[in-house]
Amino acid sequence: MASIRDVAKLAQVAPSTVSLVLNNKGYVSDNARRKVLDAIEKLNYVPNELARNLFRNCTNIIGVIVPDVAHPFFGTFISALEIALYRHGYKIMVCSTIERENAEHEIVDMLQRQMIDGIIMGCHSLEIGLYDNINKPIVAFDRIINSKVPIIRSDHEQGGRLAAQAMIQAGCRHPLQITGIKNVSMSAYLHHANFEKELIKNGIEVINYEMGWNQFSMTYFKQVAKEIFAKYPEVDGIYGADMAVCACLGEARRQKRKIPEDIKLIAYDGTFITESGFYNITAVVQPINQLAKETADMIVALIQGKKVDTEKILPVTLRRGDTC
Amino acid sequence: MASIRDVAKLAQVAPSTVSLVLNNKGYVSDNARRKVLDAIEKLNYVPNELARNLFRNCTNIIGVIVPDVAHPFFGTFISALEIALYRHGYKIMVCSTIERENAEHEIVDMLQRQMIDGIIMGCHSLEIGLYDNINKPIVAFDRIINSKVPIIRSDHEQGGRLAAQAMIQAGCRHPLQITGIKNVSMSAYLHHANFEKELIKNGIEVINYEMGWNQFSMTYFKQVAKEIFAKYPEVDGIYGADMAVCACLGEARRQKRKIPEDIKLIAYDGTFITESGFYNITAVVQPINQLAKETADMIVALIQGKKVDTEKILPVTLRRGDTC
Repeated sequence: MASIRDVAKLAQVAPSTVSLVLNNKGYVSDNARRKVLDAIEKLNYVPNELARNLFRNCTNIIGVIVPDVAHPFFGTFISALEIALYRHGYKIMVCSTIERENAEHEIVDMLQRQMIDGIIMGCHSLEIGLYDNINKPIVAFDRIINSKVPIIRSDHEQGGRLAAQAMIQAGCRHPLQITGIKNVSMSAYLHHANFEKELIKNGIEVINYEMGWNQFSMTYFKQVAKEIFAKYPEVDGIYGADMAVCACLGEARRQKRKIPEDIKLIAYDGTFITESGFYNITAVVQPINQLAKETADMIVALIQGKKVDTEKILPVTLRRGDTC
Repeated sequence: MASIRDVAKLAQVAPSTVSLVLNNKGYVSDNARRKVLDAIEKLNYVPNELARNLFRNCTNIIGVIVPDVAHPFFGTFISALEIALYRHGYKIMVCSTIERENAEHEIVDMLQRQMIDGIIMGCHSLEIGLYDNINKPIVAFDRIINSKVPIIRSDHEQGGRLAAQAMIQAGCRHPLQITGIKNVSMSAYLHHANFEKELIKNGIEVINYEMGWNQFSMTYFKQVAKEIFAKYPEVDGIYGADMAVCACLGEARRQKRKIPEDIKLIAYDGTFITESGFYNITAVVQPINQLAKETADMIVALIQGKKVDTEKILPVTLRRGDTC
C-alpha cells in the first residue's frame, strides 16, 4: 500500500506538503497541489485517517452516554441522533452506563485525550461533579449537570399537567404515579412533580411509587406492577414511563381489572412500545426526533466554538389511545 | 498542558523513548523508564490518544452495522455487545443503515483507513460484494456475506420447527407467516423455511406474507396486520418477528378475534416487547446475550490474528406465553 512518502516522492514535494493538501490546510501552490493529487490518484493512495485526525486535532466522533441503548426511549433517540449527526459529518460512539459503573469516567477521559470531539450526556449519573472542570463540548440530554452545560429536554411541566388533566377528565379518584428515585437531578422528574401539583389543585391526592435507581428491565417493571396491584387495590389510574405502564397492562389483565373501565393508564414518553400491543396506550409523547436533531445541532455548534442557548425546551403532546 | 517533548526534556531522554514507554513497546532500560514515568507524574502529562493509536496502529474501536439501533432485537444485541466488548478493552461505533444508503460503504472505508479495528456486520445489505476484497477482521451477525467471513447466528432451523410444532399442537389449520423479502441472504430466513417445511410434513399449508425490505416502523407493521386480517379472514395462527406479531395483537382486538381461541400468535426473537404488554406473547427466543458474547469473542480473536470457526450456531427455545 502506498504511503504518504511515496506520494511525496512521485509528486516531488515534501511529505508535509502532501499533508497540507490532504487536510486542506495552510498554503500550497496550485502547481504543487495538482502534482500531489495526480500522485494520489496514480498510486491509489488511501490516507491513514488517524494521521489526518492527529493533524486536524479532531476525530469527528461524538460520545453518547445513555443508561441503556436497548431501552425504547434511548434507542429511538440514538437512532435519530445518529442520522442527525451524520448530516453534520459526525459519527457516534455509544456508551451505556447500565452494568458499567465507570463508563462515564471513561468517556470523559476519552474527551480529555482527544479521542472524541464532544459528549452528549443522557445518563442518570449520580456523580455530576465529574463534569465540573471540563472546558470541552458537552450537551446534557434531559439531564441537569451544571450551569455551564447546556441542556435539551421536553416540556415536562406541560407533560405532567396534560396527564393529570386527562386522568381528572376520565374520572380518576385514586391515581398512582410510578417515579424514579428523587435524589438524581433528572429534568424528567419535573413531569411527576407537575402531575401531582395539578391533581392536588383539583383536590385529588396521588400515591407516589418510587422505583429503584437505573432499573430498566421488564422483569423489574413486572415486579413493580405486581406490587402496586397488591398494595393499592383502590388505585383507578396509573401514570409512569412507557415500560412501567406496559407492565401494569399485563398485571391488570391477570387481576381481571377492565381497561379503561376499572383502571386508566397513561404512559410518559410515548415510544413505539405504547403503540405496539393489544391496546394503544394513551401517552404523553416526547418529540424524540426533534430532541435528537436539536441535540445534534447544539453539540456541533459547541465544537465549532459558537454560542448556544443554555436551555432548549420542546413541547410535548397528549396522544389518545385505548387506556384513558 | 504538558507535551511529550516536555516529558522527554525533564526525563532527559529522546521523545521516541517516551513513546516506547507509553506504548509498552520496544526496549527501554529500567533507568530510562523510571525517569520517564517520574516526569509524566510530575508534569501531570495526559497522552494524546490519537498519537498513541497511530503508533500502535489500532484504535480499540469496533464498528457495528445494524439496520436500526431502536429495534428491540438490535438494541438488545448492541447493549449486550457493548458490555462484552468492553470486557475485552474495546468500544463500539454504532451505525444504522436505515435512512442511510451509504452507511455500509462508510464503515468499510473507516476499516480501510484504520479508524476502526474491525466490523460486526448485522444489517440487511443488498450489496455483499462490498466485502469481497477486505482482508481485515469482520464478523457477520446473523447474516451470510461470503465464505471468508465467519458468521454467528441462532439455530433458526430448530426455531422454525419449534414454532410449527406449537401451532400444530394448538390445532391451527390455517397458519400464516410474515416474512422478510426472500432476495436478501439473511440466515434468519431459515426459520421461515423450516416453519413451512414442518407444517407441510404434517399436511398443513401455510400462507406466506412477504413484507417490504428494511421496514422496521410500527406504522408499517400495523398496516401489514390490517391487510392480513382483511385479506385472510380464515387465518387462525400468525407467526413472524416480534414487532409484526405485536401489531397483529392490536389488530385482533380491533377485529374482535379472541386470543388464543380464535387466533394463535407466535413471535420470533422473543425480545422484551413480547413480554411487555397485555399478553405475554408465546415466542421462539433467540439467546441475544449469548450471541453478543460470542460475537465479541470472535471479532477480538480475529483482531488478535487467531483462527476462528467459520460458523457458530446457538440453540433457541420456545417460551410459552398467553397467545399459543
